[in-house]
Amino acid sequence: MGEPLFDRVAIIGIGLIGSSLARVIRRDNPETHIVACARRAETLEAVRRLKIADETTDDPVAAVADADLVVLGTPLSAYAELAKKIAPALKPGAIVTDVGSVKQAAIRDIAPALPKTVHFVPGHPVAGTEHSGPEAGFAEMFADRWCILTPLPETAPEAVAKMTALWRLAKMRVVEMPAEHHDKVLAATSHLPHLIAYTIVGTATELGQDLQSEVVAYSAGGFRDFTRIAASDPVMWRDIFLANSEAVLELLQRFSEDLTALQRAIRRGDGDTLHDWFTRTRAIRRSIIEAKQA
Amino acid sequence: MGEPLFDRVAIIGIGLIGSSLARVIRRDNPETHIVACARRAETLEAVRRLKIADETTDDPVAAVADADLVVLGTPLSAYAELAKKIAPALKPGAIVTDVGSVKQAAIRDIAPALPKTVHFVPGHPVAGTEHSGPEAGFAEMFADRWCILTPLPETAPEAVAKMTALWRLAKMRVVEMPAEHHDKVLAATSHLPHLIAYTIVGTATELGQDLQSEVVAYSAGGFRDFTRIAASDPVMWRDIFLANSEAVLELLQRFSEDLTALQRAIRRGDGDTLHDWFTRTRAIRRSIIEAKQA
Repeated sequence: MGEPLFDRVAIIGIGLIGSSLARVIRRDNPETHIVACARRAETLEAVRRLKIADETTDDPVAAVADADLVVLGTPLSAYAELAKKIAPALKPGAIVTDVGSVKQAAIRDIAPALPKTVHFVPGHPVAGTEHSGPEAGFAEMFADRWCILTPLPETAPEAVAKMTALWRLAKMRVVEMPAEHHDKVLAATSHLPHLIAYTIVGTATELGQDLQSEVVAYSAGGFRDFTRIAASDPVMWRDIFLANSEAVLELLQRFSEDLTALQRAIRRGDGDTLHDWFTRTRAIRRSIIEAKQA
Repeated sequence: MGEPLFDRVAIIGIGLIGSSLARVIRRDNPETHIVACARRAETLEAVRRLKIADETTDDPVAAVADADLVVLGTPLSAYAELAKKIAPALKPGAIVTDVGSVKQAAIRDIAPALPKTVHFVPGHPVAGTEHSGPEAGFAEMFADRWCILTPLPETAPEAVAKMTALWRLAKMRVVEMPAEHHDKVLAATSHLPHLIAYTIVGTATELGQDLQSEVVAYSAGGFRDFTRIAASDPVMWRDIFLANSEAVLELLQRFSEDLTALQRAIRRGDGDTLHDWFTRTRAIRRSIIEAKQA
């Protein structure tokens, strides 16, 4: 087993991601002391029932005291206030990380508040399910997925190395890239797909009550895959779209142009354009299967 | 085991659906003689290798000779010519059915060609995967899914009852509705979701080579669910969009309006509109889970 990576870890906002990480630490570094922090009493009760932390509290300031690693797992919109609140209580030399889906906004909201004595390593484990809360987490959720770290120019390499080691315990493949690039890539792979899924499921709910129950019954035709995505946490996703609006809106523009082109082909009975397009998209699926992300 | 439902079944176009149905008949009515018909020699070879038919041929006229049930499983665009070709060879009293995803077009293309001595029962088993061809089929694919029959006013009730019994062997829930209504419901549950998935995957393929490989790597964030749908058979889907263009275009209009509203909310930083929308879509997922279609 060897030395634990961290003696004391504070996880603030212990939902799907935070609780899964706690399970990984429990499994591989059982000597690490884990403090779980959440605002809602039910969440903390669930954490105690699941026995995935040594200590629970609703006070982030108390949670970070003496912690070697502080993991921010709240919705993005809570970052700025939270960073300001915990800053004076952070132990010198501690690593602060987050698991948010938009890295420029995370850096903008967290970095200025932190004292120079701590190391900030913004991160994004690209893994998850449509479920939320600590009950939904599991240690294997991260396995074979990518974790993207977006360190600042001033971030100490040792801190990045320690975070890399932690996510490797979770069996993730770890990569570093600039925050701006991360936000563009994720707009395409995650944010736009979620927006589209939310839209189409919403469109279907407005078809009138009769048709709606039929949409549910016959959802196996394709619709249910969208409903799974569109069941993701509303607060988390509201924050993601607001925080990454520029990249999302830019992509949405391209998507709308493409959709208009296909719409035009359908209206004109232009089967060749449709067939060419559909053949091209099949190749992408093959790449994903080869990249073992399917 | 009892009497088989049909003595002799001809399946013309033996892909994912046709081969899965052949497997069901093999399993539950082993005495039924199954004739598989396909244009391509590789497909017929696969059928022989899989031992899911007693006889294979590339000639639809030979296939239907003496058959009590003829199942049309080709792409929709082949229906009209195929119906004309087999019509003179159909046995009086035979049932002709199809498994296509657009029922008004199926009726328009098949019904006028058939002699009055046969029973036409248009059908649509709402089940499938993104894979194609006889190797991809399996008997359990239909289990707990819905099969929609859209009989004509003149279709004999006994013929509908026999088709209902057959799809029940496949463990499907069978329902009847007018073809026009079917096409509207499926536009929402299947055709529009496929069109959107094809669009977004296409949009991502045009982001430039560098970004594209990253889109593949980080697809676990949501994108890969779309790629699965967008890997479906291009010919089949080209035909579906052309055959059900009216209902698809009507829904696409609603979808675009909804997407524009969310786009506007993102641009204006209107988090409440986003949150309300995302909360509403979650409820639909719950209905689908309760309806056991998840």
